[in-house]
Amino acid sequence: MREDLQQELITIVGSEAVLTDPGDCWPYGYDNSRRHALPQAVVFATRHAQIREIVALCNRRQIPLIARGKGTGTTGATVPDRGGIILSLERMDRILEIDPANRIARVEPGVTNQALQQALQPYGFFWPPDPTSAAICTVGGNLAYNSAGPRAVKYNTPRENTLGLQAVTGAGTEIRTGVITTKGVVGYDLTRLLIGSEGTLAIITEAVLKLTPLPEAKTTFRATYRDMHAAARAVSAIMAQPITPCALEFMDGASLNMVRSYSDLELPDTVGALLMVEVDGPAHGLTESLQAVTEAARVEGVIDIEVANSEQEVDQLWRTRKALSPALRNIAPKKINEDVVVPVSRIPDLISGLAQLSHEYDIQIVNFGHAGNGNIHVNLLTDPDDPEKMARAHECLGRTFDLVLQLGGTLSGEHGVGLEKRDFVDREIEPATLQLMHAIRQQFDPLGILNPGKMLPESHT
Amino acid sequence: MREDLQQELITIVGSEAVLTDPGDCWPYGYDNSRRHALPQAVVFATRHAQIREIVALCNRRQIPLIARGKGTGTTGATVPDRGGIILSLERMDRILEIDPANRIARVEPGVTNQALQQALQPYGFFWPPDPTSAAICTVGGNLAYNSAGPRAVKYNTPRENTLGLQAVTGAGTEIRTGVITTKGVVGYDLTRLLIGSEGTLAIITEAVLKLTPLPEAKTTFRATYRDMHAAARAVSAIMAQPITPCALEFMDGASLNMVRSYSDLELPDTVGALLMVEVDGPAHGLTESLQAVTEAARVEGVIDIEVANSEQEVDQLWRTRKALSPALRNIAPKKINEDVVVPVSRIPDLISGLAQLSHEYDIQIVNFGHAGNGNIHVNLLTDPDDPEKMARAHECLGRTFDLVLQLGGTLSGEHGVGLEKRDFVDREIEPATLQLMHAIRQQFDPLGILNPGKMLPESHT
Repeated sequence: MREDLQQELITIVGSEAVLTDPGDCWPYGYDNSRRHALPQAVVFATRHAQIREIVALCNRRQIPLIARGKGTGTTGATVPDRGGIILSLERMDRILEIDPANRIARVEPGVTNQALQQALQPYGFFWPPDPTSAAICTVGGNLAYNSAGPRAVKYNTPRENTLGLQAVTGAGTEIRTGVITTKGVVGYDLTRLLIGSEGTLAIITEAVLKLTPLPEAKTTFRATYRDMHAAARAVSAIMAQPITPCALEFMDGASLNMVRSYSDLELPDTVGALLMVEVDGPAHGLTESLQAVTEAARVEGVIDIEVANSEQEVDQLWRTRKALSPALRNIAPKKINEDVVVPVSRIPDLISGLAQLSHEYDIQIVNFGHAGNGNIHVNLLTDPDDPEKMARAHECLGRTFDLVLQLGGTLSGEHGVGLEKRDFVDREIEPATLQLMHAIRQQFDPLGILNPGKMLPESHT
Repeated sequence: MREDLQQELITIVGSEAVLTDPGDCWPYGYDNSRRHALPQAVVFATRHAQIREIVALCNRRQIPLIARGKGTGTTGATVPDRGGIILSLERMDRILEIDPANRIARVEPGVTNQALQQALQPYGFFWPPDPTSAAICTVGGNLAYNSAGPRAVKYNTPRENTLGLQAVTGAGTEIRTGVITTKGVVGYDLTRLLIGSEGTLAIITEAVLKLTPLPEAKTTFRATYRDMHAAARAVSAIMAQPITPCALEFMDGASLNMVRSYSDLELPDTVGALLMVEVDGPAHGLTESLQAVTEAARVEGVIDIEVANSEQEVDQLWRTRKALSPALRNIAPKKINEDVVVPVSRIPDLISGLAQLSHEYDIQIVNFGHAGNGNIHVNLLTDPDDPEKMARAHECLGRTFDLVLQLGGTLSGEHGVGLEKRDFVDREIEPATLQLMHAIRQQFDPLGILNPGKMLPESHT
């Protein structure tokens, strides 16, 4: 880290907001992919104008600039593998405005998802995106990855729940995109272009979010099935009737076995797949809505449907699902965790195909996820310290992606691309379309300083 | 029209699909803005490959190419004011696939909105966008303008209801954007970038639409108010509670007077504003949902709330609203009809401001529209044959736009920009952002053949 660069950064944000000591910078080189690279510096911005100056500085010196929320991403998208400066937005965390009459909130990127939800709750509203990391992750990160969660099946993703943005492009230009109203068709839609662009086009400095009224009531049930074919039939039947659940989560047989081995939960041996379903809405019609959804869930091969009648029973029903993550960590601390998507009707083909790959490569594969969106988390359990096994796992992963694409799916539903999937992107997106994406990137960031090498495979530059 | 150009077009699509006689071409020079310009030729494509060849031809010869659905647009966006070829997509109208299990439909751009809805109905699904012209307008046109309608307040616009596109860029490159699943975060979001781009980036040749289950039941009520302040309070109260109506339409005092003068409807003189509200959902809870919404509508200043108890009563309630368009046509056949948007809470400020402008410019202004989105159709009644009056109306229009922007709004909620609003766009979008839009346009269409001069003001090229 050259002294004068450090000095320039301090001039912009003050000495309290610049880290250059490698020990201090170290934790900012990680994300949840467990990749790591040491940045040259970490700088904490708190104001829009500072970001403009930092971007200008990085352009002058041609230094990579990597925007970072709380580092909960799983793809290495915020890991500074080419060095450069980490722009931490965690201190730029104000909720600038909550306007219930217009169903909007205006926020800075560093506010956590949970802090936002808590602030909205007294007004009777929420912001739909609900990644598992909601307690820690930032809204800016949610926007960067278009992160969703279980609720997306009913309430969609950040792209459908964001109205406008303020941002600084890679060229250092301040732009405003979109509107603050729920309709608006003037100019090109740069809002959605920035959402999901993983910090490669612009740094989002402010967002106008579209709020949804909190449902009056919610009810939960668990349905167990003979096998995943039966569970998949239930998913299709549920999605074909008019009451869309607000969570429709799936666990396959391998997931259930894992939970059986690593917890004291009692789950009959006959159960080969499980659905966790939540239905929300106005209190008055909820019983009937629940009945319509359980009815749809009662397909051939169903074993049991248990409806929770109290908060305690809700927790009880979720225990199986919640026991899975610790069990997985226990058996395979460095599992390969993907979040592929296939059309809902192709879930059985995906799970069958994965069983075959599991057999062929002698790798245990555990599947669970957001069935209502066809968004399945595929976990390849392998030993990261065994290079031979890792090579095998990576070959298997490549075959998994091919299977997903062959079924009409996509490589990622909510985790994004980052470094982890970058070299697979050209299996999904054709060269001409990729070239166009690179050309667009260049309009935003001509010198390529923003998060270089992430998201788009480079061969198409 | 040079002979060899005609011959080249015939080679691509066949002689039955090319018009060059000015008499035949004439009707394709209009849209619903009543602007007109004669194209050099009209060509009807039916296949993706033909469109690629037509775009290549227009690039070679540097001829403008203007995609057109059924010409129901209101902004002149499909009027060939610089000459060129009209690419009519009305014969490319197949519904390629309806897949209820995955809640998607794959369609060609020329299918009409209504034909699509009719085909989806037996499966228990619909596609939410519902412009007034649904019986005639095409899905391709809906995508080009991001056209919505009353249902948008609950079900959103084409951007939130489209998953992926196939298109030919202005450079003649075939691209595929998005996914066919309800989640997907690989690559930049080109789908929403193309939606609303008014044929200036690419020609959409196929779309994968996201379907919504048809609600089981719907109920309608009409609420009358002392004045628009009371009606606006009701709109805010309705939007602040959790049951979102599927239509929340507004008529101001001037609209009601117009209806009073030109129809035999009985509307007490005390009524100064009116809301038409529709609530849909599962049949079982509809009575309670309706009650929640009527409760919210019962604000200070309410005169009457009438709930329809039969299809006949629904028609009866809508009569006031439906009498407005003929009344308007009667009094001012060439009214200036805008579709501005303001935050819902600012509707009273907009209506008051418009009343002031109406007085100042001595122009009758009639307002109605989609109150739940703050999307108000502002109608300036003027005499197009009187240049002095027209000049005054245009000045008033400029002031209207300034008012809208000052209230945090946008110049268009669903009609788009085309030629009508092009020269006002830079009042809403800042120069740096406009420049970026132009730069993006150039990546799609380097020679600028696709609908040149539309949507973006040219000074920023």
